[in-house]
Amino acid sequence: MNFASDNWAGASANVLAALGAANGTLPAYGADPVTARAKALLEEALGGSAAFAFVATGTAANALCLSLAARAGGVVLCHEGAHITVDEGGAPEALSGGLKLVTIAGRAGKIAPDALEEAFARFPKGVVHHGRVVAVSITNLTELGTLYRPGEVRALADIAHRHGALLHCDGARLFNAAASAGVSPIALTREAGVDLLSFGMTKCGALCAEVAVAFDPALGEDLAFAQKRIGQLLSKQRLYAAQVAALLEGGHGQDLAARANGLAARLGAGLVGLEGTRLIAPVEGNEVFIAMPKEMAARLEEGGVKFYDWPVFALQPEERPGPGERLLRFVTHHALGTEDVERLIALAAG
Amino acid sequence: MNFASDNWAGASANVLAALGAANGTLPAYGADPVTARAKALLEEALGGSAAFAFVATGTAANALCLSLAARAGGVVLCHEGAHITVDEGGAPEALSGGLKLVTIAGRAGKIAPDALEEAFARFPKGVVHHGRVVAVSITNLTELGTLYRPGEVRALADIAHRHGALLHCDGARLFNAAASAGVSPIALTREAGVDLLSFGMTKCGALCAEVAVAFDPALGEDLAFAQKRIGQLLSKQRLYAAQVAALLEGGHGQDLAARANGLAARLGAGLVGLEGTRLIAPVEGNEVFIAMPKEMAARLEEGGVKFYDWPVFALQPEERPGPGERLLRFVTHHALGTEDVERLIALAAG
Amino acid sequence: MNFASDNWAGASANVLAALGAANGTLPAYGADPVTARAKALLEEALGGSAAFAFVATGTAANALCLSLAARAGGVVLCHEGAHITVDEGGAPEALSGGLKLVTIAGRAGKIAPDALEEAFARFPKGVVHHGRVVAVSITNLTELGTLYRPGEVRALADIAHRHGALLHCDGARLFNAAASAGVSPIALTREAGVDLLSFGMTKCGALCAEVAVAFDPALGEDLAFAQKRIGQLLSKQRLYAAQVAALLEGGHGQDLAARANGLAARLGAGLVGLEGTRLIAPVEGNEVFIAMPKEMAARLEEGGVKFYDWPVFALQPEERPGPGERLLRFVTHHALGTEDVERLIALAAG
Amino acid sequence: MNFASDNWAGASANVLAALGAANGTLPAYGADPVTARAKALLEEALGGSAAFAFVATGTAANALCLSLAARAGGVVLCHEGAHITVDEGGAPEALSGGLKLVTIAGRAGKIAPDALEEAFARFPKGVVHHGRVVAVSITNLTELGTLYRPGEVRALADIAHRHGALLHCDGARLFNAAASAGVSPIALTREAGVDLLSFGMTKCGALCAEVAVAFDPALGEDLAFAQKRIGQLLSKQRLYAAQVAALLEGGHGQDLAARANGLAARLGAGLVGLEGTRLIAPVEGNEVFIAMPKEMAARLEEGGVKFYDWPVFALQPEERPGPGERLLRFVTHHALGTEDVERLIALAAG
Repeated sequence: MNFASDNWAGASANVLAALGAANGTLPAYGADPVTARAKALLEEALGGSAAFAFVATGTAANALCLSLAARAGGVVLCHEGAHITVDEGGAPEALSGGLKLVTIAGRAGKIAPDALEEAFARFPKGVVHHGRVVAVSITNLTELGTLYRPGEVRALADIAHRHGALLHCDGARLFNAAASAGVSPIALTREAGVDLLSFGMTKCGALCAEVAVAFDPALGEDLAFAQKRIGQLLSKQRLYAAQVAALLEGGHGQDLAARANGLAARLGAGLVGLEGTRLIAPVEGNEVFIAMPKEMAARLEEGGVKFYDWPVFALQPEERPGPGERLLRFVTHHALGTEDVERLIALAAG
Repeated sequence: MNFASDNWAGASANVLAALGAANGTLPAYGADPVTARAKALLEEALGGSAAFAFVATGTAANALCLSLAARAGGVVLCHEGAHITVDEGGAPEALSGGLKLVTIAGRAGKIAPDALEEAFARFPKGVVHHGRVVAVSITNLTELGTLYRPGEVRALADIAHRHGALLHCDGARLFNAAASAGVSPIALTREAGVDLLSFGMTKCGALCAEVAVAFDPALGEDLAFAQKRIGQLLSKQRLYAAQVAALLEGGHGQDLAARANGLAARLGAGLVGLEGTRLIAPVEGNEVFIAMPKEMAARLEEGGVKFYDWPVFALQPEERPGPGERLLRFVTHHALGTEDVERLIALAAG
Repeated sequence: MNFASDNWAGASANVLAALGAANGTLPAYGADPVTARAKALLEEALGGSAAFAFVATGTAANALCLSLAARAGGVVLCHEGAHITVDEGGAPEALSGGLKLVTIAGRAGKIAPDALEEAFARFPKGVVHHGRVVAVSITNLTELGTLYRPGEVRALADIAHRHGALLHCDGARLFNAAASAGVSPIALTREAGVDLLSFGMTKCGALCAEVAVAFDPALGEDLAFAQKRIGQLLSKQRLYAAQVAALLEGGHGQDLAARANGLAARLGAGLVGLEGTRLIAPVEGNEVFIAMPKEMAARLEEGGVKFYDWPVFALQPEERPGPGERLLRFVTHHALGTEDVERLIALAAG
Repeated sequence: MNFASDNWAGASANVLAALGAANGTLPAYGADPVTARAKALLEEALGGSAAFAFVATGTAANALCLSLAARAGGVVLCHEGAHITVDEGGAPEALSGGLKLVTIAGRAGKIAPDALEEAFARFPKGVVHHGRVVAVSITNLTELGTLYRPGEVRALADIAHRHGALLHCDGARLFNAAASAGVSPIALTREAGVDLLSFGMTKCGALCAEVAVAFDPALGEDLAFAQKRIGQLLSKQRLYAAQVAALLEGGHGQDLAARANGLAARLGAGLVGLEGTRLIAPVEGNEVFIAMPKEMAARLEEGGVKFYDWPVFALQPEERPGPGERLLRFVTHHALGTEDVERLIALAAG
C-alpha cells in the first residue's frame, strides 16, 4: 500500500490510451494536432489565451516560470518549505542566470500577507546591494497539503503587484487544490492574480507532463526560447500533449484529484480519531501530515505501508513532532482505493 | 511520405508496449526495477560500468555532458555545423554556467585531425584571455549523415586527450552509426576514447528518451546533481527507462537503425542515378543530402513528400548547391518502408 | 564626523604614495615587479604559498572564492546576516553558475557549531533534491563586528571538512580581526582551516583592492581563469598590487586596523556608560552596534555625525531595538582620531 | 621602448593628480561629488543623458553592456577577431547567463554590411533552435586598428535595428577612433545608432577605469543592479570617477589619443617605406599591423623594442604573413615620444 507519494503512481488508463493513440508519424516540435488540442483545452481550463510550454518535470516548469521574471539582482520570495528552495537542487538559481531565493516562515506551509509585506520591506526600492524582488512564489496545494483559497491568493498577488513583483504559483497539485476549493483552476490562478503558473499533471494521473504558463503575452514572449534553452523542447511533443489533453478532456484530472482528496479526508479523519495522533495541518487536499506515536508508525511499516517521515526544518515549532512521536506524510492518489485507506487506519489502530 | 526527419516518427511497437507494461505504482526517481534493467542493458551495450542520466531531449543530454567538462574559461571545440552550436538555442552555454563554443570548418560534417590541432593551437596553455579547451565535441553520425569510423574517433580522442580535453560524442544517431560501421556502440565510444556520450533513442524508435553517459566514474560523480539541477530528473523515471530498455533489449534499436540505413542507401543510389543530381556527402547512415534540379524537388513536393531544404552556412563551398539546384535532406526511419523509397525515386525521376 | 562606514575613508598616505610610485610603463596583466612584491608579501602574511587574485570589490572576491567551490547542486551555508547573502545583489549565485545560499541564524553575527551541524543535517548525502553543501562561509570580523577567535574558526572548519565542504572566510575586515585577536592573519585563516579567503584591503586603508585566496594549489588552479571570466583581471594590475603591498609592508594595514579598533573600544565604552544605551554585540573590532534612545540618536544627527540605522531582519529577538530605541552602527577607521570619538560621546551625552 | 600595448603605460600626470585630489573621506557607492562631476562630463561627451556604470576592465564593461541585451536564446554577432570572443575568457557568455557569440569574417577587422545581413539570415524569426540575435557588437577602433567612420557605424546600426537587435560598441580605443575621425565621441556612438557602449579609459591614460553606457533609459534601468551583481560596484567609486573626469575634462583623453595616433601614423609611414614590409591594415589609430622580414623583426627585438606577434586565425588569407615574414603589432600611447618612434624605424632599417 503506497502512500509515499502521488508521483509513484503510473498513468491513468485514459492517459495511457491517449499516449498510444498519438503514436503515428507527426510533425515535430509541436506542429501537430495533439498539441493543438492540448493547447485549446488548456485555454479553456485557464480562462483564455496564454503562453504554454510543455515540460518534463515540475522543477523545469518552476524554473522556466521564474526565469521569465528574472532580472539582474532578482530575488524570489517563497515559503521556507517551498519545493523550489528545498527540493529542486538549485534549479531556479541555475536556470535563471542567478536568481536568489529568500524564504519566509509561516504556519501550515503558507505565506501570511503581513509576513510578505515584512519581507518586501527588506528590499527598499533602488538599493542594489540587497537586490530587488521580482517574484513571489506560492505552492498551491502547499507543501503541507493545505489550500490557498482564491481570496488568499488574491491578497498575496495584490501585495506582490503593488511592489512591482509577479506572482508565481507552483501548481504541482493544482487539480487537487481546485477540487478542494470547489472551483475551476481559473479561479485559483488567472482570476486571483497569478502571473506565472506551473500546472502539474504528473502527480494527478500523467506519467510525465507539466505545463509552464505565462498569462501575460508580453511575459510569454520569451517562453519558447527559454524552454528550448533548458533542453525541454521535445521533438515528439505529442508525448506531453497527449497526456495533458487526456487529463483536461472532460475534467478527467480534476475528477481524479477530487477522488484522491476524498481518500485523504477519510484517512485524516480516521487517523485523528486514534489515541495519540495530532494533525499538523488541516487536510485540504490529498495529503495527510500527522504526528503519531512511534509504535503506531512502526505498525504501519510492518504492515507494508509506504510513507515518508517529514523533515522538520521548515516547520513552525508547534508543527514539530514531540518526543515519542514521528511526523508522517501520507499521500493519496488515483491508484489507491477506499479499501487501502481503511486498511491503513485499521493497521494504525492496532 | 515523410522523409522530413526521424523525429517525426512515433515509437516502435516494442517501445510502446514497454511503456504500457511499466505503468504500475513504482518507487519514484529511478529506484524502480525498470530503471535497473535499463541501466544493466546500457552497461552491456557500452562495455561496462558508467554513470547514466536519462533525459528528455538531445539538447539536454548534450548540455549535461558538456557541463561535466565545464571549468572557468572553458571552451568546447566542435564542427561549425554541429547541433550543439546551431540547433540548441544556446543550451550548452546557458546550462554549463557559460561554456564558449568555438567552431571548426570541415568537409562532410567532419572535423579533420589537422584542423583540430590547428584549433588547439589558438589556445596556448595558461593564457587566460583566450580560455582553455575543456572538450571536443563530435556528432556521430555527423550532421551530414556521415560516419566517423572507430579509428577516426580514436584519432580525435588522442588529440583531445593530449591537450587535456575530453571527447564528447553527440550520438543522437549512434545506433545508425554503429549499424553503419558494423560494430557495437562500444567500438565507437568507450573503446575509441569517448569520455562523454549523448546516447540518442528518440530518433531510433523511442518517443522521448536520451541518455547522458560519463564513462569515467570521477566525471560521472556530478551527473545526478547536474541532471536534477537542469530539471531533468523524472519522478516516474520508468517512462524513459522503459523505452531505453526496449531499444537495447535484443538489439532492437540497432536493428531498426540498420533497416533505416538500408532504406537511405537505396534512396541515395536511386536518386544519384538520375540526371542532374549530386550527393553532397556519402550516404553512410539514414540520411541523404543531395543537390537536385529545382524542378525535380518541386515534383517531390507536389507528390506529397516531406523533406527539408538544408541551410548552407556551415557547408564547404563545394558542398553548396549551384544555381538551378536545391540542396535537400531526406531522412529514413522505422516508420518508412521500401515502397516509400521506391515511390520517392519514381516521383523524382518524373 | 563620519562613522558611517570604513569604506567612506580614502587611502592612507602610504597607499597613495605607493600608487604614484607604481606609475611607470610596466608589463600588463600582472607580469610586473609590483605584483611580484605584493604576492611575496601576501605569502608572508598568510603563511606560505597560495593562489591569489587581485580584484576590485569584496563582492567579487567572495563570489570568486565561492565559485571555486561550486559544483552542480552546490549549497553554501552562511549566517543569515552575511554580506554574501544580504548585500551582494545576488553575485554569489550569478557568478558561480547558480550556487544556492542557505542561511543559519545565530547571536552576535556568528554561526554556532551546533547550528552548523543542524544545517548539514538538512542535506543527507547523495540526496540530489536538496543539493549538497560545498562550502561554509563565515565573516570575520562578523557583520556585527564580533570576532571568531582561531579556535572558533577551527571548530567550524572541522565540521565543514568532515562533511566534505570547504570553509570560506569573508575577511573584509581581516586586519581588524587579526589585530583584535592579537594574532597574525595566518592564525585566523590557514592555520585555522580556512580554505578560501577574501582578504580585504579597501576598508583598511586602500582605495580599492581585495584579494581572493585559495590556500590549496589544486583549488587555486582555476582561479586565474575564473578571475578573467568575471572581468576582474586588470591590465594595469599594479594598481591593486601597489595598494596590497603598501598595506602589508611593515604591517601597515594591521597597524591601521589596531588603531581603528582602539577607537571603537573607546567609543563603545563611552556610549555604553550613558543612560539608556545597550550594546547589541561586544565591541571586538572597529564597529559599535548599540541601541540608544531616539533622542540621543537625533542629537548625533544634528551634530553632524554620520552613521547607519542597522536593519533588524537578521538579528535575534534579543538583539532588536525596543520601543523608543534606535539600533545604530558606528564604524571607526584610519581617517578618524580620538578627538572625533570623544566629540561623538559628548554629543550623545547631551 | 615599449610598443607592446597601450595598456602597459601608466596613468597620465593629470589622471594621477586627480586620484590624489579625490582622496578624502567621501560617501560610498557613488554618492560623491567626484562621481557627479564624472557623470556630467560623460553626458557632455556623449551628447546627453544615459545610464553609466564605472567598472574595472573592458571585459567587465563589454559583458555588462551585452548582459543588458541578453534574452533567452540570445545571440551576439561580432567579428571573428573581436576582443569579446577572442580575449575575454568567456566573460560575455558567463556574465550574461549564457549568451552565444556567433562570428563574422571580414577584412581589416571590420564587419561588412552584406556580411552582417547574411549572418542575420541564419536566424529566421521565431525559430527557437537557432536562437535569436539580440545584439551586434563592433569594436571601434577595430582589433586591427582600423576605424569605422560614423556612416559605417550607422549602416550597421540600421541593419541591426531592422532585425530587432541592438548595436554595441566596444570602445576600448574610442578616444583614438574619435580623434582619427576628427569627430566627437557623440558622432561615433549616440548619433550613429549605438545603443550600448563600452567607453574605454584605461588604454588612453587612465590606470583603471571603463564605463558601460546605455543610451536608452529603458535599457539602462537594469544597469546598476547588473553592475552590482558582477562585483563591479566600488565602495570608493571616486577611484574610477576621478580618472574618468580627468580624461574628459578639457578633452584631455582625446588629446592624448590624437598624439598617439600621430605617432602611429609616423611609425607606419616609416616602416612601410622599408624594403620587404607590408601593412596588413591601414593605420587609422594608434596601432600598426605590419608584416616584415624575420630578420628585421629580430633586429627590433635585439634593440629592446617590445611588441607582439599577431595571431593569424581571425585574419583573412591576404592578411596573413607569408614565408619569411612575421606579422607584428606596434601600439603607440601617451608614454611614448617621437624619438621612440624614430629610433624604432632606424632599428628596423638596420
